Amino acid sequence: MTDVTSTVTSTHIQLAARPSGWPTHEDFRTTTVSYGPLEPGQVRVSNLYVSVDPYMRGRMNDVRSYTAPYAVGATITGGAVGRVTASTDDSVPVGSVVSHQHGWSDIVQADASTFTVVPELDGAPLSLYLGILGMTGLTGYVGLTAIAGLTPGDTVFISGAAGAVGTAAGQIARLLGAGRVIGSAGSPEKVRLLTEKYGFDAALDYKDAPVRDQLGALVPEGVDVYFDNVGGDHLEAALDVMNDGGRLALCGAISGYNDKGRTPGPDNLANIIVRGLTLTGFTLGGHLHLGAEFAERMTTWFAAGEIAYDETVVDGIENTVDAFLGMMRGANTGKMVVRIAPERR
Amino acid sequence: MTDVTSTVTSTHIQLAARPSGWPTHEDFRTTTVSYGPLEPGQVRVSNLYVSVDPYMRGRMNDVRSYTAPYAVGATITGGAVGRVTASTDDSVPVGSVVSHQHGWSDIVQADASTFTVVPELDGAPLSLYLGILGMTGLTGYVGLTAIAGLTPGDTVFISGAAGAVGTAAGQIARLLGAGRVIGSAGSPEKVRLLTEKYGFDAALDYKDAPVRDQLGALVPEGVDVYFDNVGGDHLEAALDVMNDGGRLALCGAISGYNDKGRTPGPDNLANIIVRGLTLTGFTLGGHLHLGAEFAERMTTWFAAGEIAYDETVVDGIENTVDAFLGMMRGANTGKMVVRIAPERR
Repeated sequence: MTDVTSTVTSTHIQLAARPSGWPTHEDFRTTTVSYGPLEPGQVRVSNLYVSVDPYMRGRMNDVRSYTAPYAVGATITGGAVGRVTASTDDSVPVGSVVSHQHGWSDIVQADASTFTVVPELDGAPLSLYLGILGMTGLTGYVGLTAIAGLTPGDTVFISGAAGAVGTAAGQIARLLGAGRVIGSAGSPEKVRLLTEKYGFDAALDYKDAPVRDQLGALVPEGVDVYFDNVGGDHLEAALDVMNDGGRLALCGAISGYNDKGRTPGPDNLANIIVRGLTLTGFTLGGHLHLGAEFAERMTTWFAAGEIAYDETVVDGIENTVDAFLGMMRGANTGKMVVRIAPERR
Repeated sequence: MTDVTSTVTSTHIQLAARPSGWPTHEDFRTTTVSYGPLEPGQVRVSNLYVSVDPYMRGRMNDVRSYTAPYAVGATITGGAVGRVTASTDDSVPVGSVVSHQHGWSDIVQADASTFTVVPELDGAPLSLYLGILGMTGLTGYVGLTAIAGLTPGDTVFISGAAGAVGTAAGQIARLLGAGRVIGSAGSPEKVRLLTEKYGFDAALDYKDAPVRDQLGALVPEGVDVYFDNVGGDHLEAALDVMNDGGRLALCGAISGYNDKGRTPGPDNLANIIVRGLTLTGFTLGGHLHLGAEFAERMTTWFAAGEIAYDETVVDGIENTVDAFLGMMRGANTGKMVVRIAPERR
């Protein structure tokens, strides 16, 4: 707890230039931001964890999207969890844990309305509010329910299944009654994790052979719901094996995020017509109203011990860019987070 | 009217071989089929018109689809309209006009249950049951309503708009309250027809310049509903200009029907995600229950003089393959039909 009249300096990571292709350290800069005494209704938060996510790569480009592109020269915004150290708003008291979207910094000070107080659950590190208990878990839930209309017995294929959204989606699919859940990942260790820890019925290593050559044998019954985090070759392979009336929830296309040119799409889009498929792209923006429903179900599942998770934790605000770049290259299993400071309960 | 005990010979056009790429005359053969006396419950029909449609090209391939591929050595099935010349079933009497799916022949004899008696409307040639009053019109209606969820005020873009489904879809969109309706076609004459006869607000000639370079200027407000008959470059151009939450009804992909290899898809599928688009492929099979609703609305519109149409009529069963090939190359404006015999009212 600090005095509301104190000033503080904070380290922020900002976008220095729009990346062309794969981002490099030169595309980011570290800046010191000074905060003055708190104004009425403000809160000061010491971050514990900040999130690095695939969608951030898209926001580094200057393209039209649901969410505005990051401004060059501004802090990279995104999910973060921290503890309140000073407050002039009773609804967000000192000592409480908050999640917010102020992004890559060690300390942030802003209007109380931009922070959400979250409960400290038994056995749950606070970083999970950036993962399975937060936007990541909600993304899996929304994609499977509102977007893909999962029904009990459906065979579900999830690409990038060992990633944060993938491990969430796989478990949620099973808990919602999917028949079989199949995943793809990029190493033998991740493939093993999917079947041994996360309850996937089968998994493939997309580095072994083309996905198109592997997927059919794993799903002789065809796929009813495809949850796509990868795009490109994975989407093409899925279109080969979708059942009539299948639903594809397009959540991410990490395979193309760093393409400099435009990459051609799948060669089998005609299947969309002859099989009567529905492809729906989504971002969380239009579906945040499902957050309460999700939180209730996920909290129940978590308390019942039904939810496994992995985190890849990188220490230190100064390593945030490395964590982001590593995540883009698949260095994480489960959610990649940056620990800014140790949790003190 | 003929005696039910008589025999008759009929000319049928059959699939001789699966086409590789563009079909040729060698892929078809003309056969004489003999019908014996009518069995109980049978009907004999002299066809007046048979239909040639883009979807038929797909059925000539041996690929999985909602509808089974045509069998090599069997008659090409599809829409036809004829007059009953003999009947042993009271529900389908001699002299009545019927529509059916027995396809490319001058005479057909089959169970009464496979024929539908249709009314003879004032001012409507019976060939319209192969077009705007039949499956073609229903395809436009289903795509705009059940698939794309057209709402009043929507800007609608229709590719292949001067074709049979396109002219139907354009008019139905306007009658259902679309804000603006834009079309593409393949000649200056067709473009003029779209705006002058069919009520399109604007149209482009896709042979003038890449669709991608032309479409944006015609739809500064963006597109809410895209009705796709073409695929390929048209789908790619549409994905560039779709508004957030836009719906794409994928009805056909004539641009790729005769590709020998697999052709890459659009390079901008990422827009599906960032703009929250929904692409739904459809064939009529799952939507025939909307036929009665459609017939009621279309009959009303037609009687009120709200419906324009064009037909390209080719005479003679012996010219059916030429008509089909011409339609695939865009030789038709509106519905392409083959007249087997003159209407006698």
